[in-house]
Amino acid sequence: MSSLPPRLLLGPGPSNVHPRVLAALAEPLRGHLDPAFLAVVDEVQGRLRALFGTANRLTIPLSSTGSGGMEACFANLVEAGDRVLVGVAGVFGERMHEVAGRHGARVTRVDAKWGTALDEDAMIAAIERERPALVAFVHAETSTGVRQPVERIAAAAAAAGALVVLDCVTSLGGLPVRLDEWRIDAAYSATQKCLSCPPGLAPASFSERALARVARRRTPVSSWYFDTTLLGSYYGAKRVYHHTAPVGLIVALAEALRILDAEGVDARVVRHARAGARLVAELEALGFEPLVAPEHRLPMLSALWLPEAIVRAGEADLRRRLLEEHGIEVGGGLGKLAGRIWRIGLMGENARDEVIDRLVGAVKKGAGLDSSTFPVGKS
Amino acid sequence: MSSLPPRLLLGPGPSNVHPRVLAALAEPLRGHLDPAFLAVVDEVQGRLRALFGTANRLTIPLSSTGSGGMEACFANLVEAGDRVLVGVAGVFGERMHEVAGRHGARVTRVDAKWGTALDEDAMIAAIERERPALVAFVHAETSTGVRQPVERIAAAAAAAGALVVLDCVTSLGGLPVRLDEWRIDAAYSATQKCLSCPPGLAPASFSERALARVARRRTPVSSWYFDTTLLGSYYGAKRVYHHTAPVGLIVALAEALRILDAEGVDARVVRHARAGARLVAELEALGFEPLVAPEHRLPMLSALWLPEAIVRAGEADLRRRLLEEHGIEVGGGLGKLAGRIWRIGLMGENARDEVIDRLVGAVKKGAGLDSSTFPVGKS
Repeated sequence: MSSLPPRLLLGPGPSNVHPRVLAALAEPLRGHLDPAFLAVVDEVQGRLRALFGTANRLTIPLSSTGSGGMEACFANLVEAGDRVLVGVAGVFGERMHEVAGRHGARVTRVDAKWGTALDEDAMIAAIERERPALVAFVHAETSTGVRQPVERIAAAAAAAGALVVLDCVTSLGGLPVRLDEWRIDAAYSATQKCLSCPPGLAPASFSERALARVARRRTPVSSWYFDTTLLGSYYGAKRVYHHTAPVGLIVALAEALRILDAEGVDARVVRHARAGARLVAELEALGFEPLVAPEHRLPMLSALWLPEAIVRAGEADLRRRLLEEHGIEVGGGLGKLAGRIWRIGLMGENARDEVIDRLVGAVKKGAGLDSSTFPVGKS
Repeated sequence: MSSLPPRLLLGPGPSNVHPRVLAALAEPLRGHLDPAFLAVVDEVQGRLRALFGTANRLTIPLSSTGSGGMEACFANLVEAGDRVLVGVAGVFGERMHEVAGRHGARVTRVDAKWGTALDEDAMIAAIERERPALVAFVHAETSTGVRQPVERIAAAAAAAGALVVLDCVTSLGGLPVRLDEWRIDAAYSATQKCLSCPPGLAPASFSERALARVARRRTPVSSWYFDTTLLGSYYGAKRVYHHTAPVGLIVALAEALRILDAEGVDARVVRHARAGARLVAELEALGFEPLVAPEHRLPMLSALWLPEAIVRAGEADLRRRLLEEHGIEVGGGLGKLAGRIWRIGLMGENARDEVIDRLVGAVKKGAGLDSSTFPVGKS
């Protein structure tokens, strides 16, 4: 047995895993072609379709983390020379830009300031000007805590005949996701955020339009591992062996999705919204300041400028003490926001009042803060 | 909780997981940048180096199944137009050929009959004739149960200045693997075979020669997810975030490697050898016939032609009844061997006499066989 200490995981993911999911992980393993396991695969595919808001046949748990889901989308849907438009307002938009380029796309980017949403009009204008074959952007930008409105951009892309790829890594299970209604062609998520599963799977979904694009490729998909045609042979009626599915993780995901469906996705969305709003209010009272305008804040991941007292005391040191003395992990800033913000996740099982109470208490104690010394507002 | 029945997993993998590893999976999760977890990563890297027989710095658990490990090797080490030589004597050699081609290699293949090893002289002659940049072959061919001698082919490749990629998916932890002594530049395995872990990680190792080749690339690695340069930033001194490591699986792998090291790899190799030899002898007495010559048989995976009685009764039906009535999974044939052989794995925890007893008893009962009606030898 390991002697690792338990943690309250309030960073950008992984989040804490429900005890029933941990119990599912500890069940004896079965084979990846075992009928009993294949019934679980069917169940997972069905529950993921409902959660993604799609009827897409190829809705599956990819055998990778969320970043592998991103790779799968671009590897399948892009060929050398294809025009791709990417919206970039944080690390994960940058990553989409990078991955699309590696697959040979001629990539155009529309940038927005980190901490803001993409300018929808600018995206639409770029779509109409560039006429890209594919448009990609992030629904929930984990590096900045920004929720990106999807519908207008996706509609403009569809009207221009472009496929749309949407990063739902942090949104799925905590915000409404409606791939079919929004006309999204490929989307991917991760299990360790609002689904409260361990990392290692990327739930993903591909529309028939996307699969038709794959069928029309002039060149093979460079990635054998993420080839949607081959994956569809296992995750379909034929159950043809492709690679050994991560059976234990998929059984755990099934349990997590049962828990999610018992709560109901609408109730879960409301729970995340309430928790995120309360967290921000509590921390504003301590001198933190939200990075993101209210209408674009993610409920499950709050990005906050630090109070002067924490910057002076050393934010990395305070995070280390929160971890060591209180068993609480929060996230620092990525890229240009490193050292300047914290990213606090209330994802899945952690989007609850008692978690907020524990965090706020620990921050007050750890930083020597209390609300009487830090009035609400800018420091 | 799931109602999946427990199974004795005697197919080509996954194998059964040690109870201590299951318990590790059920431990509360921690973050992928948590110092307590990073210490486990260090431990896993160290234990994997010992098991692979290498000092390679970049020896890591890739966040994919074993097939992703194969992809990582070719994606990093091959550029369009590179000459690659692949030895093909089964499904996994074929897969190497396919994956190398998808990454733009000009691939030459040396074929051997399924159920035999590659002809070492033919491989060496092809290396000297083709002067490939990279030579790839399979140490333990899971589709046929063949153990491939490595040293002469690898030495010839090294002498010709070629990099060598070795598939160790089924061999690692059950056969000696000595990457440095054999001069292998990239190798990958999987956790669900002789390591008795769940599937979802690909232990892999890259030599400094391999990394120097990556550094000399004219084009970026198409796979961002498997890019060894980026992976080296997380699995190295800097711990730079790349993707969220599958923390739970890595903690479980650490426990499996502790169990393996407590037994000792030499003792484990002997245990696999004894179990494999006894299994074949017991099944020969029932009319099964080994596909592979004794000197090339894998100890952890036995491929056997079926007795006439089982072919007549329907081998798929008997496998189904073994699963449903006895809770035992064995593997059928792949590709051209489908319906004609069984592949029986005694991997990791399952390479034990009591497992063989249970399997042989169930086969006798299930097929209405006993040793008095089936003399040893060909049917």
